Amino acid sequence: MELIFLGTSSALPTKFRNHASIALKAFGEVILFDCGEGTQRQMANIRLSPMKINHIFISHMHGDHILGLPGLIQSMGFRGRIEPLYIFGPPGINKLENILLNFGCLNMSFKIIIQEVDEGCIIDNAEYIVNCIKCEHNIINYAYSITEKKKPRFLKEKAIKLGVEPGPKFSLLHSGQEIKVNGKIIKPEQVLGPPRKGIKITYSGDTRPCKDLIDFAKESTVLIHESTFEDEDIDKAIENWHSTASEAANIGKKSNADKLILTHISTRYSDTKSIKKSAKKIFNNVIIAKDYMVLEVK
Amino acid sequence: MELIFLGTSSALPTKFRNHASIALKAFGEVILFDCGEGTQRQMANIRLSPMKINHIFISHMHGDHILGLPGLIQSMGFRGRIEPLYIFGPPGINKLENILLNFGCLNMSFKIIIQEVDEGCIIDNAEYIVNCIKCEHNIINYAYSITEKKKPRFLKEKAIKLGVEPGPKFSLLHSGQEIKVNGKIIKPEQVLGPPRKGIKITYSGDTRPCKDLIDFAKESTVLIHESTFEDEDIDKAIENWHSTASEAANIGKKSNADKLILTHISTRYSDTKSIKKSAKKIFNNVIIAKDYMVLEVK
Repeated sequence: MELIFLGTSSALPTKFRNHASIALKAFGEVILFDCGEGTQRQMANIRLSPMKINHIFISHMHGDHILGLPGLIQSMGFRGRIEPLYIFGPPGINKLENILLNFGCLNMSFKIIIQEVDEGCIIDNAEYIVNCIKCEHNIINYAYSITEKKKPRFLKEKAIKLGVEPGPKFSLLHSGQEIKVNGKIIKPEQVLGPPRKGIKITYSGDTRPCKDLIDFAKESTVLIHESTFEDEDIDKAIENWHSTASEAANIGKKSNADKLILTHISTRYSDTKSIKKSAKKIFNNVIIAKDYMVLEVK
Repeated sequence: MELIFLGTSSALPTKFRNHASIALKAFGEVILFDCGEGTQRQMANIRLSPMKINHIFISHMHGDHILGLPGLIQSMGFRGRIEPLYIFGPPGINKLENILLNFGCLNMSFKIIIQEVDEGCIIDNAEYIVNCIKCEHNIINYAYSITEKKKPRFLKEKAIKLGVEPGPKFSLLHSGQEIKVNGKIIKPEQVLGPPRKGIKITYSGDTRPCKDLIDFAKESTVLIHESTFEDEDIDKAIENWHSTASEAANIGKKSNADKLILTHISTRYSDTKSIKKSAKKIFNNVIIAKDYMVLEVK
């Protein structure tokens, strides 16, 4: 799977960083975390089709994280989308419907299912689970985690020994269904290896360093955490309910994430050397996000 | 004065063209015609401050012409704006207020005066006049013209002969006020040349070729007209209430504009050679707009 950073700025856009948005290409779809103004154009710039987006998760209701939604949705309509679109977000996200109806959007040819979330599990399907938790911002902000349901290894040789012929029956067993061979029932657990840990990606949204997030992000393959400010601007981080590089790195360390990506960088910094240096002192496997950065996750 | 083309695409953005927006740098301010999604970033890319925008004129309520408003306004707030902002547009534009209140925008530190326009004169101040007229689109679309009030030439030598000393009194007379010199009243008309024609800029918004627009755009220094389609796609132009290159060029010719700029180019065309060729056959002084194109107008 791939993480594609579409926008890595904070409140204001710059020539090099657009408003917040991150795409996850996985499970045969594109999953979007936040959707700041201009997200659809960022996608056009790297030829990532909005038609493949099925799920959008909004961290909080500040403009720089949501103002790309009406245009993105309108463009899906222009392109003749018929598949439903699921949007999850904090209280207030359902006002989007009113905006789509009243502010420049044409009749939509597809269903938009908007769901105001609460803490806990919000999606549990065949391929992944999505959980969310409240963090600490000046309005309600949710962090989301998406965890792959990784199938156990299929023990081919064991299956053949039990008389199962290679083919569709392998798939049935691997997907958890029992089958009959020569009148004998073969159960999946007879031909599957031990459970395997799936990839887990956690995205913080905007937040002060948050204790609950440490448990929530535990053992993430990738933790994407905001680092709006350098360490020396901690007073501004506190005042505006954001995190510094070191604070974000501490969350990465305490949650024992494999990799930490810092994003939502304030426009006040022309380079991110200081942010990287501070974070690396605490957590070595850290990357400062850039627009259009693609990260393969495995 | 300068016209700066911030977005020259039609419904969808491309790598090279953003949604519709045109800035006019004149009269000590920036005047914006339409404000598609991402306009604030287009401005950031060429270092044009949104703080200098005092007036915004919206042609019609389709998303690709208005969805940049919430973000642009929010960014003005972030930057600590206190000056009022005037927004003019067709019925429905006042719904913007509700969106600003309910969809991600913080408390605004400045006044936003939104005015739904009708045909006729909508601004008449010391420096310019703005008129608008309905065109022919599938929803109400206004074309706008802005006409400079150009002062007559100041006849310096005549003034000196009448006993006026160079200095502030020259300015008073030039701005139309009478003064007293040695007990004698000097009237402006005694020291001013004949009336001079000011620059006139007309912007069509989205429209089928519109008869009324010919009179409205009469003698424009610059007419900015949409040309969403090439001539051979006239069926699509009719179906979607847009204009072809030749149709737009005809409006330029019949209104006797000095210069014609074609914009709102459909994403289906990878180059604009055919649009230029068709238009040039009818009206020679034509330019196909590009994003970031700056046109000095004098």
